[in-house]
This record gives sequence, C-alpha cells and structure tokens, in this order.
Amino acid sequence: MSATDTYLGLRAFVDELTRCGVRYACTSPGSRSTPLVLSLARDPQLQTSSHIDERCAAFFALGQAKQSGLPTVLTCTSGTAAANFTPAVFEAHEARVPLIVLTADRPPELRAIGAGQSIDQLKLYGSAAKWFFDVDDHPATPERMRWLRQLGCRAFWTAVEGRPGVVHLNFALREPLVLEEGLSQQEPGGGGRHGGRPWVARPRTMAAPWPALTAALKDRLARSQRPVLVAGRMERDAELPSAVARFAENAGIPLLADPLSGARRGPAAIAHYDAMLRDQPWASSHVPDLVLRCGDLPTSKPLRQWLRLVEEVGHVVLDPDAAWQDPGGSAGEMIAADPRLIFEALTSAEPRSNRSAWTSDWTVADRRASSAIAEVLSEHALNEPRVAAELGSWLPASSTLVVASSMPVRDVETFFPARADPPRVLSNRGANGIDGTVSTAFGVAAASSEPVVLLIGDVALAYDIGGLLAARRVGAPLVIVLLNNNGGGIFSFLPVSKEGDDFERHVATPHGLDFSHAAALYGCEFQRVETPERLRAGVRRALEVGGTTIVEVVSEREANVQLHQRVWETVGRSVSAV
Amino acid sequence: MSATDTYLGLRAFVDELTRCGVRYACTSPGSRSTPLVLSLARDPQLQTSSHIDERCAAFFALGQAKQSGLPTVLTCTSGTAAANFTPAVFEAHEARVPLIVLTADRPPELRAIGAGQSIDQLKLYGSAAKWFFDVDDHPATPERMRWLRQLGCRAFWTAVEGRPGVVHLNFALREPLVLEEGLSQQEPGGGGRHGGRPWVARPRTMAAPWPALTAALKDRLARSQRPVLVAGRMERDAELPSAVARFAENAGIPLLADPLSGARRGPAAIAHYDAMLRDQPWASSHVPDLVLRCGDLPTSKPLRQWLRLVEEVGHVVLDPDAAWQDPGGSAGEMIAADPRLIFEALTSAEPRSNRSAWTSDWTVADRRASSAIAEVLSEHALNEPRVAAELGSWLPASSTLVVASSMPVRDVETFFPARADPPRVLSNRGANGIDGTVSTAFGVAAASSEPVVLLIGDVALAYDIGGLLAARRVGAPLVIVLLNNNGGGIFSFLPVSKEGDDFERHVATPHGLDFSHAAALYGCEFQRVETPERLRAGVRRALEVGGTTIVEVVSEREANVQLHQRVWETVGRSVSAV
Repeated sequence: MSATDTYLGLRAFVDELTRCGVRYACTSPGSRSTPLVLSLARDPQLQTSSHIDERCAAFFALGQAKQSGLPTVLTCTSGTAAANFTPAVFEAHEARVPLIVLTADRPPELRAIGAGQSIDQLKLYGSAAKWFFDVDDHPATPERMRWLRQLGCRAFWTAVEGRPGVVHLNFALREPLVLEEGLSQQEPGGGGRHGGRPWVARPRTMAAPWPALTAALKDRLARSQRPVLVAGRMERDAELPSAVARFAENAGIPLLADPLSGARRGPAAIAHYDAMLRDQPWASSHVPDLVLRCGDLPTSKPLRQWLRLVEEVGHVVLDPDAAWQDPGGSAGEMIAADPRLIFEALTSAEPRSNRSAWTSDWTVADRRASSAIAEVLSEHALNEPRVAAELGSWLPASSTLVVASSMPVRDVETFFPARADPPRVLSNRGANGIDGTVSTAFGVAAASSEPVVLLIGDVALAYDIGGLLAARRVGAPLVIVLLNNNGGGIFSFLPVSKEGDDFERHVATPHGLDFSHAAALYGCEFQRVETPERLRAGVRRALEVGGTTIVEVVSEREANVQLHQRVWETVGRSVSAV
Repeated sequence: MSATDTYLGLRAFVDELTRCGVRYACTSPGSRSTPLVLSLARDPQLQTSSHIDERCAAFFALGQAKQSGLPTVLTCTSGTAAANFTPAVFEAHEARVPLIVLTADRPPELRAIGAGQSIDQLKLYGSAAKWFFDVDDHPATPERMRWLRQLGCRAFWTAVEGRPGVVHLNFALREPLVLEEGLSQQEPGGGGRHGGRPWVARPRTMAAPWPALTAALKDRLARSQRPVLVAGRMERDAELPSAVARFAENAGIPLLADPLSGARRGPAAIAHYDAMLRDQPWASSHVPDLVLRCGDLPTSKPLRQWLRLVEEVGHVVLDPDAAWQDPGGSAGEMIAADPRLIFEALTSAEPRSNRSAWTSDWTVADRRASSAIAEVLSEHALNEPRVAAELGSWLPASSTLVVASSMPVRDVETFFPARADPPRVLSNRGANGIDGTVSTAFGVAAASSEPVVLLIGDVALAYDIGGLLAARRVGAPLVIVLLNNNGGGIFSFLPVSKEGDDFERHVATPHGLDFSHAAALYGCEFQRVETPERLRAGVRRALEVGGTTIVEVVSEREANVQLHQRVWETVGRSVSAV
C-alpha cells in the first residue's frame, strides 16, 4: 500500500459523490484525515469550508443540507473529533436531513490498543446512522476502484432515498498520509463513466397512493362538514407548501399551518391557531369531524391538546417516509405516500365546498386574533413577540429565516402572519435542541444566494458561540436577530419557575454576557435596537452591507411571560364571540 | 404515579451517591430533567455547578473527577443535550475516569413517535459506557426505594471499581415534573442505613501479584545490565509516582518519565529522553536489555520508535486494569496487578545495583541535554518550549498544571525539568482530543484548593471558547497560559505542511482571533507577555488575584518548528559524546 493507492481511491470515491450531486463539504483540522481532507478540497466540483470545532462543522453541514436538499459531506480526524458530530447526526436523523459522514480512523492494528486519538468508531452514531460501513485500505486495483466508485454512489443514494438521513463511512488510513508528488497517474480500470454520469444512477421514485385510496379520501372529504388541515415542518419539497395551500383553498378547509411548513399562505391559512385554541370555549365549540395532517406535528401545545381532545375524530396522517410521527397517539390512519401527489389528486377533483359557515368561523376568528395581537403588541416598545411578528411581515419572500428552538420557534408559530409569499422558515426541530443553532444558520447562509436571518435567544447564542467563527473563516453573510433576556426565557412559562434560587441558577441560567464583545471577537457588526422601526432598518442595512451583524433586542423574562398572557387573554376575548 | 413518588425515589438515589462518596454534580438547563436537577441541587452534601453547554458540563465533570479521583455526577435533559456529553464520555472511557451520567428521557409512550426533544438514548454512548441501565418510573413503594438505594450504590461502585469509567443511567420521567409542595413526607421503607453508611459498601480491593511473580521479576532485574523504566500518564494513585521514583533510584534504573506520570522526580529521572532519543547514534548505542513500563505509553514519538527498535528485549507492562495498552506491539509480558504493590515489593528487596556505567550514561546525557536546551532557549525571547520549561521549573509543588493535547503536551514532555517536588500535570490523553480542554481545566480548578494553571494553544482555546463561561458562572480560579501562533502549530511539523494553500486553509486553520475580546466577553483578565520574567510575574500575580486570567504568549508557527529543530540538533551534538 502506498499513499498513491489511498489517494487514487479517494479521488474516485469523491468524484462519484459529486457526479451524484454533492456540492458542499466541511472539513476540520487533523492528521489522520489528511487524505480525506485533501481529496475533498481538491475536487473542483466541491465548495469546501473549514471548521475548527467539529460540532460546529456538523451543524453547518446540516444547515447546508437543509437549505440545498443535497447531502453535505462531513469529514474529521479520528478520536473524539468524530464524537463531536454526534449532536448534529441525531438532529439530522430525526429531521430527515441527508449527510454523508466520512470519519478517518486508525487501521485495525492501532485500534483498541492505546494508540493516540483512537476511540471505538464502529457504529459510533448507533441508531442515528442510516447506514454504517467500515472501509479498509487496499491497493488501487481495477476491482477496488470500481468498488469505491460504487461505494460513493451508494453513500449518496442511501443518504437521500426514502427517509433521508445520515450515512457514516469510517475509513482506516495508514501512513504515509501525504503523497510524495502529485496524482498524475492514470486511474486503474480507467476512471468514471462517460459524460459525467455516476457509476450507478438511481432515478428518484416516490410513494404514490393507490387510486382506490385517493377515491376513498375524496369521499371522506366530501362527506366532512368540519374538516381541518394541520401542516407542520416540511422542508424537503419546495412545491409542497403551495400545493397544500391550493388544496385547502379549493376545498374550503381551514389550514392550521406552522410557518415551518411553508404553508401559512393563501386565504385558507389560519395563522393564530395557537392563541385561538388557548380559549377553551372556542376550542371546544370548534371540534372538527376530520383532521388531515402533513409534516411534523406543530409545536403549539394548545393545538396538540385540542387534537388530543378530538382523537375520536379520524386523524389522517400523510407521511412520505412512513414515519410513525404521532406523539398524541391520535392518528387513526397513516398514509405512507407522497403528500404532494395526494393533495394534487384531491385538488383536481374536489368541488368548492359548501362548508362556508365552518370555514368563515375560522377565518373570522383568525382575523380577530390578528387584530387583538396587533393591539396588545402596539402598546409596548419592541418585545419578543413583536420581533417575530415584524420579521414575518416584512422579510423578503426570497429570504430564509432560521429560527432557534425554545422560545423563538414558538413565537414565530404564534405571531407570524399569513402571507401570499412568506419567507422560508427553517429550524432544528428534529430533536429540538438549541445546540448548534448559530452553525446551522451559517450553513444555511452558505448554501443561499438570498438573504438569511437567524432569530435566536441569548442562551442558544451562548451555547454555540464558537459557531460565530464562521463569520471570520467562512464568511457567508448572516443577520442574527438576538432576543436577549439573560437566560432561558421559556422556562419562566413552566411550573419549575416557582422553585426560587434553584430555578434561577440551574434552569434559567443567567450569564450576564455582553454580546458586543462576542461581535468584536468574531469580527461581526453589532447594534442594539429598541423600536420596530429600528429593527427593520437595522436588518435591512445589515442585509445590504453583507457580512455578519448581530442585531440585539433586550428583553426581560418575567415581563415577557406577562405580555404573552395578555396576548392570550385578549385573543380569547376577541374570538369568544365567534 | 405522582411527582412525590419521583422525588422521593430520586432523593434516596442521590443520598446513596453521596453516602458512597460523590461530592460534585454538574447540571444543565432543561425541563424534562427538572426532578434530577432539583434532587441534586438540594442535596446538602453536593457541590453543584450549572453549565449552559452540555459538552462543557461533561468536560468540566471530567476535570473534577480527574482531580478528585471521585466520580462526578452529570445530568441533562432529553434529546441532543445527552448527545453533547459524547466527546467527554469517550475521553473518560479511554482515560479511565469515573463519571456517573444521569440522562432524563421521555417515558416509553413518548419515545420514537415524534415527541419533542426525544432521540434514542438507549445505549447512547455505545461501547464507551461501562454500564448502561434504563430506569423506569414507579410508585415509591418500600421495595422500589430499596432498589433505588441499591442502584445508587451500584452506579457509584461500578464507576470506580476495576477500570474506572462511565456509568450511564437513563431516567424515564413523566409529568408532573415539579412538586406541588415540599418533600416533607417520610420515606417508604424508612430511609437509608444508620450512621451515614451506604446501602451497599464495597471495600476497595487491588490486584496483587503472586509471590512467585515478584520473585521472578526480582530475578530478571538482578540479571539485567541495562534496564530502563518507562512511566507514562498515571493519574489515579497519588502515592504511585513517588513509589516509582524510589524504586528506580534504589535499583539504579534510568526512569524515562513523562510529566503526566508524576514520576519525573528524584535522581533516576531522565527528563529529556524525547530530545536525546532523536539522536540515532545515541539511541542505537543505548539499547536496554529490559524495559519495564507503567502508565500509558508516553506521547514522545522518538521514545515510541526506540521502544519498537528494542522489541526483542523483554517489555514488561504493568497495568492495574489489565488493559491491552501497547500500540507498538512490543510488550512480551503484561502484568495485570497494581503497579504500586509491585514497585514496593521490588524496592524492599532490590540491592543497589552495580550497573553504574549504564545509569550514569543516562544521567550524564540528560544533564548535557538539559544544558543544551537551556542554551538554545536562552538565545530567544519567550517562545513555546521556554514557556513549558519555565512552568516546569517554578510552578508550586502544590499546584496542578492542565496541559492541552497537541503541542503543549509534547513541549511539556520535552522541556519539563525533573524536580524533587513537581506540580501535578493532567491532560486529556485518553483520546487526545483538544475539545473540552478549557472546561476540563475549570473542572480541575473547581475540585482544587490549590493553584491551577492551564497551558493551551489558540486552536484548542478557540474550540472550547464557551468553556470560559465557567469563569462567570462557576468562578473557580484559573490561570490560562495561551500559546497563540494563530493556528494549529503541531501540523507544521508534519509532511502535510508542504501542501500549500490547502494545508493553510484546512489543516493549519488560522482564525485571526484577538483573545482579549474573549476575556472581555467572559469577564477574565488578559495580559500579553514577552519575556520569561513577565510570564512568571504575570502568572504569580494572577494566582494571587484569583478569578480567571489569560496570559498570552504570541508565537509564530514556522519559527517554532525551526526552534525545535535547533534544540534537537544541539541536544544531539551534546549527547553524542556520551
């Protein structure tokens, strides 16, 4: 075995990844991984970025993959480097995001024997990896080269096909790890297929419903007097949100759409269901007789509780990957087919319904809720809900808003208006962690030619503060809107907030960080804004300037709880008459 | 099931942990983990600290456990929070450090079904956990309480006994997660045993050699004309380093001791073997006829290569945990007994040897190497090797030096002098990662009443920058000596450094960070020093002041390589005459 064998093999393997469609790769420093890193860096089809912290690298890769729909390749050296990928690998697994993880490993004679930087990397990500394979090293015979080309294709197609997820290949690499000279040599076996085709093409297929199923659904819809459509996070199919909205409009079905679904658009969209369904009289007097669901179940707790109340009603869950996605246990029917095919089939045939009282109840109530919210929020200076409402109303349709888990994703769900042309909204809602939010947003930005804005709280920013290094080292433009209430504001809504000092110290975790210093450290612009006008002007200017800007809005945890409660009460009063 | 059941059970479980000896617990914010967090925070025997980033929490816990020898308890909420423990769990596993990880999980009905913050936490750490157990919830019957008390003891003893490591208990927790009122209620079954005894005591045992084995070893030693003793990282037994040094002195055996062994002390200690063994003529003319080894194999590459050259010679490896720790494959005999018992048995009987020529060859050469190093380093202003040499010469004997992997640990191995009373030196050399170094050092400091200093490079500091939040939120005093050469200096020593732009971007990874802004962000003092005198004065003042100070030494990667090469050449010339 020579370094030439290693590099010839990896060049062919990487070549197949790009022939299949990979465009992005993330690397981190190390020695054992040198052949992987250089093979990726030298492929002209790849945009590579370099990250010091592998946890940041992995979340950055996740963001790129979410935004582009293509698997990002992620490589690191042996040892705990690979263990730092774990959080993002789990998020990718839960959120169905394709990643191709290439870990460098010691060869067998240096495993489990006290050699430096060696841990047990076999099946390191356990059940979170869709496919794991341990790749040995071997001379670059024609048979080996053919296998490596096939392996590259298999890694790609396995990551993207069916339920997308994480493929983990572990490469045993022996010294020497660098070439004496360049790789001018002809590839044994002759190289890849003509015309840039991958070694193995796997045309995409989709799960289509049987005609009888569509007919039965049409029938149920026609008989339903009080249907609702609930749409949660759906990131993969750019055409799906419009298809959902079109179907709902056509069929006259109230569309309870989380902004993460992309379907909070069109006349059927109900934007403020979270606040409306907190009103018990309203919720219990608007019980549906049919619930159609697509995407993840939205975060809204009132929605989830209401859905559980109505579980005797048929819940029909559409999921393209046959996932068992039903934490409330209320699904009565799960359809493992592509939702777009189903909605298009239903739209074409469904006559405009005559359920107008039901539909208008929802739209009238939503309009009243909207006015009530606007009324409460306009009484105050800039606050957390208002920031979400503002971003939702004026962010360009071409832009992407990345939203941190915890409070921001909930405020976006509650306060984002319905629009004809909403911005794209992305969030790490597979496992709902706040870890890696900054890095994810930079990854989204690196795969975007349009504006990207991140809405994040101070704890999530403190958590992934090292992710800001991408502002210096990668340079994708990003505007960070920071809601700073010096602690985990969401916990103030929970019963644990009554636990005094223990709550403050171990749950709220105030940190006292002045993030202007973080901006100085990582070369970002920083501004603090106190009015909606300044927020809008600040974000607009930051988008024009490029680079990374932190736009901080200072808030107060207890006041934020009270403001939310006033919103809910006011919305409750406004809808109770409907 | 009520919250009272949950809290009664956890109070008893935590009570047993502290009865067994646990003193430290680390928490992170979350909701599902509330019963675990509050039960730990409210045990008066525990010092709890709170950490926003679970990766930092885990490395902090690791540092506490390394310094104290006691398992630290580590808890977090469900989801990727638990995945962020992974790097430190692997380091603890490889480095044999006891940790008790308590992850909160959703109950079975909310697992694998799309509920928020849920991932597959069963056996999450794979082969890195010594013991995994999934704990359900259950009413607090007397039988349950007895079992929970037994479980606490079992977690503790499993973590510390034999080869210490990581115990992972996964707790299914159901709502309600907080108590309506306090926990005044009597414990079903009556509570723990009288007198503060644990439910199950497990007196420590140690693996002792058979008398015939000791006799045989004595015999081999007596017949050996050219023995050496190689001592690597040994953190657990505070008495072992002195026993090693005493044995070596008594037996007249050159003691090649990594500072991580604690045994670079006494007249037999050879401090500069790394530089000496780079000289081929010296190395090949000083081939031992017996190699005794204890602790990890030291990092030094020349030492490892030399040991491989002499593999026909009997290598006798002493390991108390029967670990298979031999990356060179040169061990001929592995003794799975407590090294201290063996060294004490050998010391008592071994007559002063008459191998004086062999011994003096080593000590004379070491003295010459020491002078040569001093000569080269004195020609220069403060530089990386000089910083290691300085710290080694004047850090108080009572202090602990935490050393980052990568260059600092190598410079400490090469340049630390032998002393009668060396400071304690700790490093994450289980898996040799740079991740988590800052947090580890804060954990060491939190378990110390004496000074703690961290020697770290800029890439490792950039990696774990969030670890500095402990300066604000935990407040353990720490002096950070930062070697800043704007990138990964170690890679400049490797063949990959010839790879031009790809090397610089993907391997060296310069970042341009001005760490004075990091100091401002986290409320640390910051000073830049340029002379050995200023370094010493700066560290001394920082130790007096308390709090966290970053003392920065600016360096240059290429010049650092050249300086090391000059040291090696000069040492080579100085020892070649011996």
